Amino acid sequence: MFLLEFYEREPPIPPEEYLRIDSFELKSFVSNIYHSLGASEFDADIVAEVLVTADLFGISSHGVQRVSRYVGGIKCGNINLKPNIKFYGRGAVGVVDGDRGFGQVVGVKAMEIVLEKVRDYGVGVVLARNSNHYGIAGYYALKAVEHGYIGFSSTNSDKLVSYVNTVGRFLGTNPIAIAIPTPNPPPILFDAATSIIPVGKIEVYSKLGRELPPGFVIDTDGNVLFGDAKKILNQLREGKASILPLGGLGEEYGGHKGSGFAFIVDILCGVLSGAAWSFHVGYTIGDKPSNVGHAFMAWDIESFMPKQEFLSRIEQYINEIKSLKKHPKADAIWIPGEKAWKTMQTRLKIGIPIHRNVYDELNKIAFEIGLKRELKILIKR
Amino acid sequence: MFLLEFYEREPPIPPEEYLRIDSFELKSFVSNIYHSLGASEFDADIVAEVLVTADLFGISSHGVQRVSRYVGGIKCGNINLKPNIKFYGRGAVGVVDGDRGFGQVVGVKAMEIVLEKVRDYGVGVVLARNSNHYGIAGYYALKAVEHGYIGFSSTNSDKLVSYVNTVGRFLGTNPIAIAIPTPNPPPILFDAATSIIPVGKIEVYSKLGRELPPGFVIDTDGNVLFGDAKKILNQLREGKASILPLGGLGEEYGGHKGSGFAFIVDILCGVLSGAAWSFHVGYTIGDKPSNVGHAFMAWDIESFMPKQEFLSRIEQYINEIKSLKKHPKADAIWIPGEKAWKTMQTRLKIGIPIHRNVYDELNKIAFEIGLKRELKILIKR
Repeated sequence: MFLLEFYEREPPIPPEEYLRIDSFELKSFVSNIYHSLGASEFDADIVAEVLVTADLFGISSHGVQRVSRYVGGIKCGNINLKPNIKFYGRGAVGVVDGDRGFGQVVGVKAMEIVLEKVRDYGVGVVLARNSNHYGIAGYYALKAVEHGYIGFSSTNSDKLVSYVNTVGRFLGTNPIAIAIPTPNPPPILFDAATSIIPVGKIEVYSKLGRELPPGFVIDTDGNVLFGDAKKILNQLREGKASILPLGGLGEEYGGHKGSGFAFIVDILCGVLSGAAWSFHVGYTIGDKPSNVGHAFMAWDIESFMPKQEFLSRIEQYINEIKSLKKHPKADAIWIPGEKAWKTMQTRLKIGIPIHRNVYDELNKIAFEIGLKRELKILIKR
Repeated sequence: MFLLEFYEREPPIPPEEYLRIDSFELKSFVSNIYHSLGASEFDADIVAEVLVTADLFGISSHGVQRVSRYVGGIKCGNINLKPNIKFYGRGAVGVVDGDRGFGQVVGVKAMEIVLEKVRDYGVGVVLARNSNHYGIAGYYALKAVEHGYIGFSSTNSDKLVSYVNTVGRFLGTNPIAIAIPTPNPPPILFDAATSIIPVGKIEVYSKLGRELPPGFVIDTDGNVLFGDAKKILNQLREGKASILPLGGLGEEYGGHKGSGFAFIVDILCGVLSGAAWSFHVGYTIGDKPSNVGHAFMAWDIESFMPKQEFLSRIEQYINEIKSLKKHPKADAIWIPGEKAWKTMQTRLKIGIPIHRNVYDELNKIAFEIGLKRELKILIKR
């Protein structure tokens, strides 16, 4: 007999506002929406898989609540459902032109090329331009791990974050994801926005009616904003405020480091790929294509050391971390990616919590495009 | 007529305790020391150049004040003056075994191989094991820029930083450096420790008798330490305290991100290269070899887009940053690497400020190994 351990990184609060949906049902429902709108089944499945993976990982800000944003992107012509994706490159590197396709479709294609390159050369680097929002960066890094490689992925995104020592929205949250094989699941998955918090965190504070602590957001005069999270969220959306980079305000606690990481991501994903950068990156729904840029890379472990030796060294490292003395105020000692993995194990069993509003929205979208079924509920609270 | 602009990132405080030394004199003096101790002229020049470059950049913690530490490393046998450096690899990647050579010598050798690889494949990745402290990470990234490439370098280092949600020294300050060509100097140089501050900053507070603000260091019970910087520095050295990762204590402001970056650096530089990692990395002077590990990479811009197009895009990006609205409390808006560059321009003209104690120490080292001259002073204050 063993104990089933249920863990959710982002538990549904308040629970009565949520419905549990089976992850396969959710994936197939979302895929049907995009397929009905004109995407190939193959492409629609990719988009649905990346979105639902975010929900499984407990990153609902990047999950199916974005379905409607992408539908908007299709309707305004910024997302091209039949992209002609082309690759230009030499040796172990190159650039994919995404032809305004779904970011997920462009991303999976780019990572496929990386996987060919890394097999031949020990490393592969592919950038992407003319793309769209691609969901969680970690999804692509994990693709490399599925094939036994170390995976990297990064993307730029529309403006939300201030550059160090300045005010106003300029940089995206520009995440960096790195995934590393381990002898037993979960793989290591580091996936971090280079901003001090993701905008999703402010959305959560706003929804729960909680006071936002100081240190996350400044207004366009440089004042630190805190308190009413809903109001702050509006200020952010109207361009009257910006999220601080990792490290916070100014340079004392390392704001130049977070800002620097975001800048470098933008140069590699945006400038070098031929995509847009900083405030030139468009929102999915708008009067110009987003022209988001991404970066993908993989390293072949075997080209550096025997795979088994690497895996046993990684196992030892993880065990050493788990044996450290916990900080008295911390809940636990976590390896990057462990929370997402445990959340996924839980949600594969008991379903994904979907907020009532998102549930209604998904059904409405399906209804409007003539799909004849509702999203099936697994557990109603 | 034009105005000479003098700028120093780290001005000598108090000025009367410093002497100005010409950078070429300093380089030749330091090189002589290591050559006299048995290093080849070529290798001694490399070590001197990396150390003096740190001083030129205004990063004195990594400058010639480390000469004596390396001399100690030679005397105790941890630094091998005649290393047999070997490369093992395939395709665009591989590992250098440094045979306990100077980190700088191993680093320059590894970056040379990267530069061959990137020419052939568009990307090159070389890791290094059995190495030592290699100085400023940015030096190696800039080597790639000298040849027109984008350069990356990273290293692990001896334990000083706590892993998120734990107490005690475990990780190194594990810096990440990325250098990017620009149409006109300075090149972009992002070079950041993944800790919230470098230990050098606490040393500066201690020397000036200033109070250390809270948020940088915790003791082994998890309490945040602040105030007496000298005392805190001692606690750090004795293992009774640790520096927090970038993002600070816990996860609220992103401590898991800084800690995650340091962990990933350690996996790539330490675990994958075959070097030591986390608390296994030795100090330069100690009862076992340091076995520091490094990572080096370069990307060929031309393999992604025409070089001129890239450079003009970068120029536009930099101009856009410089046109942003400055935060009222900030001194200026800086591009990564700009402070170091301006400091270097200044110090190439007026010399490098060397603290009296360091000046005496250098002369003492030279005297003890039979060198017949003193370090020549450019300006005495």
